[in-house]
Amino acid sequence: MTQNIYDDEKFFAGYSRLGRSVEGLDGAAEWPALRAMLPDIRGLKVLDLGCGFGWFCRWARQHGAAEVLGIDVSERMLKRAAATTQDPAITYTRADMELLELPAASFDLVYSSLVFHYISDLERVMSEIHRSLHPGSSLVFSVEHPIYTAPSDPRWVIDPAGRKSWPVNGYLCEGPRSVDWLTSGVIKQHRTLATYTGLLLRVGFVLGGIEEWGPTDQQIESRAELADERQRPMFLLVSAKR
Amino acid sequence: MTQNIYDDEKFFAGYSRLGRSVEGLDGAAEWPALRAMLPDIRGLKVLDLGCGFGWFCRWARQHGAAEVLGIDVSERMLKRAAATTQDPAITYTRADMELLELPAASFDLVYSSLVFHYISDLERVMSEIHRSLHPGSSLVFSVEHPIYTAPSDPRWVIDPAGRKSWPVNGYLCEGPRSVDWLTSGVIKQHRTLATYTGLLLRVGFVLGGIEEWGPTDQQIESRAELADERQRPMFLLVSAKR
Repeated sequence: MTQNIYDDEKFFAGYSRLGRSVEGLDGAAEWPALRAMLPDIRGLKVLDLGCGFGWFCRWARQHGAAEVLGIDVSERMLKRAAATTQDPAITYTRADMELLELPAASFDLVYSSLVFHYISDLERVMSEIHRSLHPGSSLVFSVEHPIYTAPSDPRWVIDPAGRKSWPVNGYLCEGPRSVDWLTSGVIKQHRTLATYTGLLLRVGFVLGGIEEWGPTDQQIESRAELADERQRPMFLLVSAKR
Repeated sequence: MTQNIYDDEKFFAGYSRLGRSVEGLDGAAEWPALRAMLPDIRGLKVLDLGCGFGWFCRWARQHGAAEVLGIDVSERMLKRAAATTQDPAITYTRADMELLELPAASFDLVYSSLVFHYISDLERVMSEIHRSLHPGSSLVFSVEHPIYTAPSDPRWVIDPAGRKSWPVNGYLCEGPRSVDWLTSGVIKQHRTLATYTGLLLRVGFVLGGIEEWGPTDQQIESRAELADERQRPMFLLVSAKR
């Protein structure tokens, strides 16, 4: 089973205070870019892998999705998701993503935000997702960008001229990275961008779009600290079609 | 017109001494990976954009291509290409890639090695390439990887523990980069990986494969200095289908 860090007390407390936990989708700077990659959601049967507090599940229903299934491994997150959802067309289910089994040709959209970089056997999961989609329907997901996950010591270095750089190393050495984020020893899987796209193509997807998220001018105007996020992409956003 | 650095005397002298100039394709560490992305070349009508000394044109013919057209902007390179080629099915033509005009539906394969990062208006070129291919046929190309081209000061930094990192900054700030390589003031165009794939999709290609080149164990065994190339990818290799 993948490390279930979201049920770690310290991690959960820290995560609960993040903008994206308090404000929901609008608290996530990459959300407008990810939303732009979604198909028209009206009438669709949607699966959200790693639904967390259920923000996307509720958004999908508010925008006309017919039915939404949210899956997550975290008991704490699902508990809060259920407590803040009053909608019989949204179902939350607990499952370990590594052992995920999905019904064949059952969904019109699979969505996943910042989850796949925790999964060890991603090819298996991608294959399950592919099988679970109707032909012609979409997978849209985000992960931490490989440039972001690669370094052995992932923090800005500042040169004598004051310029910030992101010290990329080990990019082509894939595998687990242990980082301190909200708590110590959070395990993420570093994969190259080519590996992500290769997995998708191998299980039968057609690539629809790749975005490397950076802040818009407007976002930097309202949150100056976001300017650093142009130095290297923090998020990789991908859409693909079965 | 793009800077024609290959006709600069100092640059040309330096370039002529590189492994890939002396030994040809086998002197380019990324060639085996790029070759693996090519379709069966037998009987194909091939266009090589940025053919340089003509190594790939001759390889293509030796491996059964029916006809090969090599285009380059460098007079010096084309002169040497012509002097080392005895094959009436290979034609070399001089053209500025920015002004490229190609006949419609004329080629079965367009190949380009380490050229597109010199071109300013790449969408126009991609669109010409797409138009020039028969439906179902392929574009296979390499460029310097965006991680490699991004930095304002593109050289290894070494931390106190002796670990080499590649200082990525300005990744999301696309545009020209002036670097000193063989001579001073070589102009390259930095684009994100998402921009490369977006261009391809926009002009109508289907993405076939993305590789971020790194050396194999065998390559490192025979050339130990290649190990650094695992820290960050130097080359991006892409295949696409019309």
